[in-house]
Amino acid sequence: MDIETPALVVDLDRLQANVDHMAGLVSARGLGLRPHAKTHKCLEIAEMQLRAGASGLTVATLSEAQVFVSAGFTDLLVAYPVYPVGAKAERLRRLLDSAHLRVGVDNEAGAAAIAAAAPGRDVQVVLEVDSGQHRTGVLPPEVVQLARMCDSLGLSVVGVFTHGGHSYKDPAATHGAAQDEGAALAEACDSLRAAGFDIAVVSAGSTPTTGAERPAQLTEERPGSYVFYDRQQLALGACTSDQLTLSVAATVVSVHGDRFVVDAGSKALAADRPDWLQGHGWVPALGADATVVTLSEHHGIVTGAAAQPAVGDVVHVVPNHVCTVVNLFDEYVVVRAGEVVDRWPVAARGRNV
Amino acid sequence: MDIETPALVVDLDRLQANVDHMAGLVSARGLGLRPHAKTHKCLEIAEMQLRAGASGLTVATLSEAQVFVSAGFTDLLVAYPVYPVGAKAERLRRLLDSAHLRVGVDNEAGAAAIAAAAPGRDVQVVLEVDSGQHRTGVLPPEVVQLARMCDSLGLSVVGVFTHGGHSYKDPAATHGAAQDEGAALAEACDSLRAAGFDIAVVSAGSTPTTGAERPAQLTEERPGSYVFYDRQQLALGACTSDQLTLSVAATVVSVHGDRFVVDAGSKALAADRPDWLQGHGWVPALGADATVVTLSEHHGIVTGAAAQPAVGDVVHVVPNHVCTVVNLFDEYVVVRAGEVVDRWPVAARGRNV
Repeated sequence: MDIETPALVVDLDRLQANVDHMAGLVSARGLGLRPHAKTHKCLEIAEMQLRAGASGLTVATLSEAQVFVSAGFTDLLVAYPVYPVGAKAERLRRLLDSAHLRVGVDNEAGAAAIAAAAPGRDVQVVLEVDSGQHRTGVLPPEVVQLARMCDSLGLSVVGVFTHGGHSYKDPAATHGAAQDEGAALAEACDSLRAAGFDIAVVSAGSTPTTGAERPAQLTEERPGSYVFYDRQQLALGACTSDQLTLSVAATVVSVHGDRFVVDAGSKALAADRPDWLQGHGWVPALGADATVVTLSEHHGIVTGAAAQPAVGDVVHVVPNHVCTVVNLFDEYVVVRAGEVVDRWPVAARGRNV
Repeated sequence: MDIETPALVVDLDRLQANVDHMAGLVSARGLGLRPHAKTHKCLEIAEMQLRAGASGLTVATLSEAQVFVSAGFTDLLVAYPVYPVGAKAERLRRLLDSAHLRVGVDNEAGAAAIAAAAPGRDVQVVLEVDSGQHRTGVLPPEVVQLARMCDSLGLSVVGVFTHGGHSYKDPAATHGAAQDEGAALAEACDSLRAAGFDIAVVSAGSTPTTGAERPAQLTEERPGSYVFYDRQQLALGACTSDQLTLSVAATVVSVHGDRFVVDAGSKALAADRPDWLQGHGWVPALGADATVVTLSEHHGIVTGAAAQPAVGDVVHVVPNHVCTVVNLFDEYVVVRAGEVVDRWPVAARGRNV
C-alpha cells in the first residue's frame, strides 16, 4: 500500500459485514435502524447503511444535516437539543424546507428558539429523555410537562429519544444502561400517550446497548460506532477484534530501546480515553500488548510490541474512539485484502456547528 | 457578537501582546526566535511573529511546511524526524527547491530516506537530541555517531535541537526540564564541534521552558503555545490568566440542577488532558471553579459555576491545550474589545502528513 501517513484506513469487507450484521440484528427485533452519522460523516457509508435497510440517519448538528441533505439523505433526526438563533435559525429553516427533519428538545428555551426559527411551519420535535447518563434530557416524570410546553409553542411532539451513554462508564455498565434506556423510554412513552400525544418515535441508541432486550414501545435504534468499532468498544465487549474496521496507518519514525514512535499523535488518533482504559491505541499486528502509551501531537509512543519494528515500517493503529478520529481527516483510504480500492471524502469533517 | 457556536475565538490585542512579549524576552537573551507554527497553523499569526522579529518558523510536518512556503514563509525548520518516501519524498524535493528548509533527523534510516529523496542536493539536517522527555532524539553521547553517519550520506549537519517536553509532566517539572534542555544541547554541541562539525543551529523549545537561563551555545528558542496559552499553561505557571487569548465560544443548550451543558464537546475542545489536571476546560466568566468536567463529542458538561447561566447564553471556554483545538476548526473568529473584527483561516488545518 503506497499511502502517506498518518492516514485513515477502512477495510471495505469488514465495514460491509458490520453494516449488514447490525441491520440484521435490529431488523430481527422488529425495530427500525437510524444509524448515527456523526461516526463516519461519509456519504458512501450512509448509502451502505440505507441499502442495508436503515430508515434514515441520525446527526448531531445542523451542519452535518446539511451535508447529508445536500446529497439526498432527507430523513434525519438531529438527536441533540439544538438552540437555533441567527444564522443557525436560517439554516434550520432551509433544512425544514428540503428534508424530513426531526429535531431534539430538552428544555423550554430551546423549544422556543426552534418555534421562533420556523414560524408557521409544522416542526416535528423529539423529546430527549435522561435514562441515567445525566447529560442532557429530562427525567421521565418531566416529559409530559415538556411536551405540553412544546405543544403550546406550536411544535409537533412526535416522539422521545435517549442515549444510554452511561454504558461507556465501564465494561460492566452496558447491561444496566441498556435496561435503563428501555425503562426510561417506556415510562416516557406511556405517560405521553396517556396525556394524549401521538408518539411515533421511541428511539434508543448507543453501540454497546443496541441488541439488548427492548420494551414493546421501542421503535428504533441509533448506534453509530458499530460501522468501525474501536479499542474502546472492544474493551466494552461490544465487538470482537475481527470486527475492528478502521485504523490509522502510521510510519515508525524512531526506535529507541523498548519503545518506538509513530507519526500518528493526538492530531491523528485524538486523545479520547475513558478512565478504565490505559493508553491511546493498539497495534494488533505487534501483539496483544502493543499499546500507544503516550501521545504528543505528532508522536505516538508505542511499548509492549512482541517484536520491535524498523524505522520506515508502516503499522496500523486501532484508535480508542473512532468518532473523533474520523473528524481529524479529510478522507478515508478504502482497502480490500490489503489493496487500496477507493478514497472517500469525510464529507462532514468539521461540520460540528 | 453574532457568531455560530462552537467557534474558535482569538482576542487580537492579547495575541499581539503575547507575540511581542515573547519576542522581547527571547531577544533580550540574545537568542533567535523560531516559533512553532503547529500551534496556530495560520498565515496571519505567522506574519505577526515575523514582524515582531522571529527569524523563521518551526513546523511539524511537510504538509504544514508547504502551506507556509506557498504563502512566502521560506525559512523553516521541520522539528521532526521525517521519513520521506513515495509522495512524501517528492514533496520534500519540491520544498527544498523553493525554501530554506532544515529537516530533523534522529536515526540512520530516516537520514538515508532524506538523502535518497533529494539526491545531489545539499540538504541541511538538524539532529534531534533527547534531553529527558524520552520520546524521539538521541542521547548527547550518541550525537557524534549520528552526525558522522549523516555526513557519510551526503547530508549537511548544521545543528541540534531538543524539546524538553517533560516540562509538561507536572507543574513542578518546568525548571528541571529547562536545565535539561540547556545541558543536553551544550553537551551535544560541544561534542560535535570537537569532532569538526560546523554547528550553526542550537535550538531549544517549549513554551514553559522558554525564558529560562540558557547556556552560551544556544542560538534559538521554538515556543509554540505562547501565542494563545491555555488552561494547561496556566496551571504550569507559564502564563497568567490575562494572557489567555483563545477560547471556544459555546452556547448553553441545557441546564439541569447544578450542571449545564454547552455545545462544545471533544470535537471542539479536543480531549487532551494531562494526568495532573482535572477536567477539559474552564469558563472564566463563571468563576474560578467553572470547569468542563465531562466531554462527549458535542456536549461539554460544566459544573462549579458561580451562577448558572440560562439556555441560549454564549460562554467562552478556555481549552486545556490550544494546539489540538485549533486543528479542529477551519477559521478563527478574531475579536477586539468584544467585537468581531476579522476571520482568519486555519490555513494548515489537518495538514498533519
